[in-house]
Amino acid sequence: MMKKKPLILITNDDGITAPGIRALIEVMLELGEVIVVAPDSPQSGMGHAITINDTLFCDPIKIDSKASHKEYSCSGTPADCVKLATQQILDRKPDICVSGINHGSNSSINVIYSGTMSAAVEAGVEGIPAIGFSLLDYSLDADFEPAKKYVRAVTENVLKNGLPKGVVLNVNIPKLAPSKIKGIKVCRQAKAMWVEDFDKRTNPQGRDYYWLTGEFVNQDKGTDTDEWALEEGYVSIVPVQFDLTAHHFIQDLNEWEL
Amino acid sequence: MMKKKPLILITNDDGITAPGIRALIEVMLELGEVIVVAPDSPQSGMGHAITINDTLFCDPIKIDSKASHKEYSCSGTPADCVKLATQQILDRKPDICVSGINHGSNSSINVIYSGTMSAAVEAGVEGIPAIGFSLLDYSLDADFEPAKKYVRAVTENVLKNGLPKGVVLNVNIPKLAPSKIKGIKVCRQAKAMWVEDFDKRTNPQGRDYYWLTGEFVNQDKGTDTDEWALEEGYVSIVPVQFDLTAHHFIQDLNEWEL
Repeated sequence: MMKKKPLILITNDDGITAPGIRALIEVMLELGEVIVVAPDSPQSGMGHAITINDTLFCDPIKIDSKASHKEYSCSGTPADCVKLATQQILDRKPDICVSGINHGSNSSINVIYSGTMSAAVEAGVEGIPAIGFSLLDYSLDADFEPAKKYVRAVTENVLKNGLPKGVVLNVNIPKLAPSKIKGIKVCRQAKAMWVEDFDKRTNPQGRDYYWLTGEFVNQDKGTDTDEWALEEGYVSIVPVQFDLTAHHFIQDLNEWEL
Repeated sequence: MMKKKPLILITNDDGITAPGIRALIEVMLELGEVIVVAPDSPQSGMGHAITINDTLFCDPIKIDSKASHKEYSCSGTPADCVKLATQQILDRKPDICVSGINHGSNSSINVIYSGTMSAAVEAGVEGIPAIGFSLLDYSLDADFEPAKKYVRAVTENVLKNGLPKGVVLNVNIPKLAPSKIKGIKVCRQAKAMWVEDFDKRTNPQGRDYYWLTGEFVNQDKGTDTDEWALEEGYVSIVPVQFDLTAHHFIQDLNEWEL
């Protein structure tokens, strides 16, 4: 155990009042000093968006009247929340940043669309060990109780072991009763994608519009992927990096006639 | 040369009327059959956002009255544009997707915040060879003429050689006179970051708000990075992947007590 209580920055992308972040706060209050800076409204699918052409509001808010930790509600994206927290709100660097618990999966390719993970990545860029947590249950009344044990275990490990520079963790938790969860598996990101199927409609003024829908397709038969682990009843952990260089292709590219 | 004219999907994040996409269209019209599906307004800093909680409009638009190619203006993000184009507008898969030319750099860590690159990545996820182009000049009246030669060369190479699955290209072009550009360098993404410095103000109602500002800090002394190449007067090409797995950390992570 650390002698000094670790400072834990908490954010999410479902908004500061979402049950998922409330569950995350509960776990983190057992592990350290907590500060919450989270979006004032849902930001799902925001990817790594930042607010550069608009103003940002960020105000103290009291959600639980009995709580003694501080919370701030921010008009921006999850990445904005991390930037505001570290630059404007906190007077020391957090020891860890945790994001979530997201209502819904951020496994495989979802990581690139994920506001939850963008907050973790933003913290990682700033040199703060960071974890994004997601539960595979989109419903607002999802049961986060079974997830707590794993959230705690992973967070304790990161506080103890740290993370290498440039790496954050993407943790997904299956929607299963506690007795059905088989444990934790370290995985790679499955090669999967969304096959879109836009729902085209016409508005009362006669103008066409679309709702984005789609089907998740996993093309990856590997048994070392996050999709495989989740289907088998494991919590998946994928170490995620933000050096996006495809190093394996540099040599070939150097042979092009450019 | 390909016998059949390649189908080229063009998008960007500065909006369909931006000079950068107009320059890109000019070059692509020399190389193939062009279709433009781009945001109706600037989307800079949108990262890989997608629109899931709002409706999308996507309407034909005529920007250049002399042009014979088709253009569509979309209310969504760059990633939305690619999804709409491939699923709703086009009746065959494009041979290539080009995004840009962005007004401003998308080198190093900017790739994760970049709407320009999110469009390229989205195309890559769908199995379409894709390139994001950016000019290191944020001004609306930036001179895109010197960039065209390099945009053409890289696009021709991708049409000829293809790209491996899971890889797209991030091309940045320095703001230099044609004679000063030394050529093209294949690079890795520099380890750099933005050190934020929020500009805190008070609105007329007395409520504090923030503008995100910041200073770009390159911590990377390597001479194989995009930042180095651009500073030296080269066009930089970084191959970018969207498997974010930090494979090098999987072994260590498996030693944790989880």
